[in-house]
Amino acid sequence: MIRKDRLETLAKALRNKGLDAIYIGPSADLEYIGGLDTLPDERVRGLMVAKDGKCFAMTPLLYKEEMVNAFGDVPFYSEWDDHEGFTDAFRKGCEHLGVVGGKIAFNDGVRAVDMLAVRDTMDIQMVNGCDILAPQRSHKDEEELDNLRKASLIADDVIEKLRCYIRPGMKERDVAKMIPEFFAEGGATKPSFQSIVASGPNGSMPHYSGCDRTIEENDIIILDIGGRINGYCSDTTRTLFTGTPTEEMKKVYEIVRQAQMAGEAAVKPGATGQDVDRAARKVIIDAGYGKYFFNRVGHGIGIADHESPYMIEGNNVPLEPGNVFSVEPGIYLPGKFGVRIENLVAVRKDGTGEALNHYPREIRICER
Amino acid sequence: MIRKDRLETLAKALRNKGLDAIYIGPSADLEYIGGLDTLPDERVRGLMVAKDGKCFAMTPLLYKEEMVNAFGDVPFYSEWDDHEGFTDAFRKGCEHLGVVGGKIAFNDGVRAVDMLAVRDTMDIQMVNGCDILAPQRSHKDEEELDNLRKASLIADDVIEKLRCYIRPGMKERDVAKMIPEFFAEGGATKPSFQSIVASGPNGSMPHYSGCDRTIEENDIIILDIGGRINGYCSDTTRTLFTGTPTEEMKKVYEIVRQAQMAGEAAVKPGATGQDVDRAARKVIIDAGYGKYFFNRVGHGIGIADHESPYMIEGNNVPLEPGNVFSVEPGIYLPGKFGVRIENLVAVRKDGTGEALNHYPREIRICER
Repeated sequence: MIRKDRLETLAKALRNKGLDAIYIGPSADLEYIGGLDTLPDERVRGLMVAKDGKCFAMTPLLYKEEMVNAFGDVPFYSEWDDHEGFTDAFRKGCEHLGVVGGKIAFNDGVRAVDMLAVRDTMDIQMVNGCDILAPQRSHKDEEELDNLRKASLIADDVIEKLRCYIRPGMKERDVAKMIPEFFAEGGATKPSFQSIVASGPNGSMPHYSGCDRTIEENDIIILDIGGRINGYCSDTTRTLFTGTPTEEMKKVYEIVRQAQMAGEAAVKPGATGQDVDRAARKVIIDAGYGKYFFNRVGHGIGIADHESPYMIEGNNVPLEPGNVFSVEPGIYLPGKFGVRIENLVAVRKDGTGEALNHYPREIRICER
Repeated sequence: MIRKDRLETLAKALRNKGLDAIYIGPSADLEYIGGLDTLPDERVRGLMVAKDGKCFAMTPLLYKEEMVNAFGDVPFYSEWDDHEGFTDAFRKGCEHLGVVGGKIAFNDGVRAVDMLAVRDTMDIQMVNGCDILAPQRSHKDEEELDNLRKASLIADDVIEKLRCYIRPGMKERDVAKMIPEFFAEGGATKPSFQSIVASGPNGSMPHYSGCDRTIEENDIIILDIGGRINGYCSDTTRTLFTGTPTEEMKKVYEIVRQAQMAGEAAVKPGATGQDVDRAARKVIIDAGYGKYFFNRVGHGIGIADHESPYMIEGNNVPLEPGNVFSVEPGIYLPGKFGVRIENLVAVRKDGTGEALNHYPREIRICER
């Protein structure tokens, strides 16, 4: 059902920003407001919300049943067949809400080509609606925090199951394919994102997406995994070993571990995303590995696996109670290996950080 | 590596359309031109191609290694850190190509919010670049056809494996989780799309995405599956039974089967996508089920699982040799069940259709 409380807060944000409406395509925003968890494709679907809180839903007939089930009593559906365009329906909906010619924001679930198709057929002012729901979504209520805690505990269990499962001789894909199964055993039926199993030199690519390498004896493996509970994501990373780490691996591991702990410890009243980034990064820079850590320290998480607030240089907005984000420094040595350790952290009412993951951060060797 | 031949054809298309450049985000277009198979996310990545065939690549450092591996010798990389925006890099690239102030098309791999961020920081004319590569991509060469044939044969095998695997008492998710495994056994390591296992009344939603229902005795199950070979997709649907179909199921099944065959038979010299749609649809309308078939008859397929040409009312472009598309009529009875049968069809040099799937279209019962 569309969450009336969230819709009202959104309408208020639109009025504050001088916008007439926001069009929300398939995205975490849409799931947050309307409970619709669906993937974007070439068919245009979404929800238009006007500044007075009125709205209409867009869907081709093919998806109508799914959308009706999700949204419930939405006052206006604009339907069209495959063989008609969506722009007529879009314009009729806009006329109904009285927002033709107005300032309409488009969120990150909308494709540029679809927005341009609208622009080419009706009079609108297009506004970047990337961040309109971000402040609202970044404050988790108790129910949301509970879901995030549960999802994180399951992720911890999956890491341990993987530690017991991984053996030299397995391919990365053999490990990857067990991850959804282990999450399902724990009750998380949907992955948060495509998990990463990056062994040996593949670990030097923070977002490695391959799966072909065979895990060796005395290997090092980055496992970056997540599953959902009631739509809310977990996201945790541990770097495991199949045998004795080399001295270099041990050294790099310890630096990353210290950096991760420093990032978590920086979550305190008045701290900003930049403070958290700097605290973790300083440990790595001071150890002489600064140029091997080239991405941000963390990202907010909720229905989306990446959302506001970001732990990043330049983010000077103070963290607030209810924010939840990752702290995930890493060191990536091209051609050699990588180490990353990632916990999710929630900001408590008193401004301190509560780690949602509890899996040990010390070096852990896979079972033999 | 970037395909120089395809790049040249694209540059020519830009000149013909009076465009200065096209910006291609993560999408089938990007895989077709640059061999980069990657998912879009909130980080901006892509390839700008100017009308003279010059280009530059965009990527944050995090993805640089992946992009260099894919593109090879691209003359200009615009790099930026997480904590800088991408718009500066984008503008510098545009200055380098001399396309600032020009007409720039954006393809369907670009998010509206990113295009608006560019618009807000530099002078450009935004053009809908949805269909610029479509004509080029819809003509498959022999190598592409080979990949599509192989992928389709594997899909046929997976249907048979599923027929032998499915038993009453299994949940839809139990079946769904075997599909990637069966595809991998056949050599297709990546799915084309999230497969659909829609049993009983769930079959009435053509794009059902659930997985919780338990398959019963004498049940009916839609299996819509696909896997990739060298990036090229298969996509086939069969509707199987776990026991004796009811008279109504048999009747509806036979109508859909006749409609599917009529659609395939309509592929002949001079035929259009509309002709194929009408030929299949007529069978269903004549049988009195027209209102239970409300989507198009088919879609083109290649690197993307949905691309040009579309088998749809209003598509009056004659089919051409090298086109490959699905023919997938269905009947969807809300609250009861659904039936869909889908083959891929390639247009031969003589204009007739070659079915790429060979799995029987007759009623098939799962093994007991």
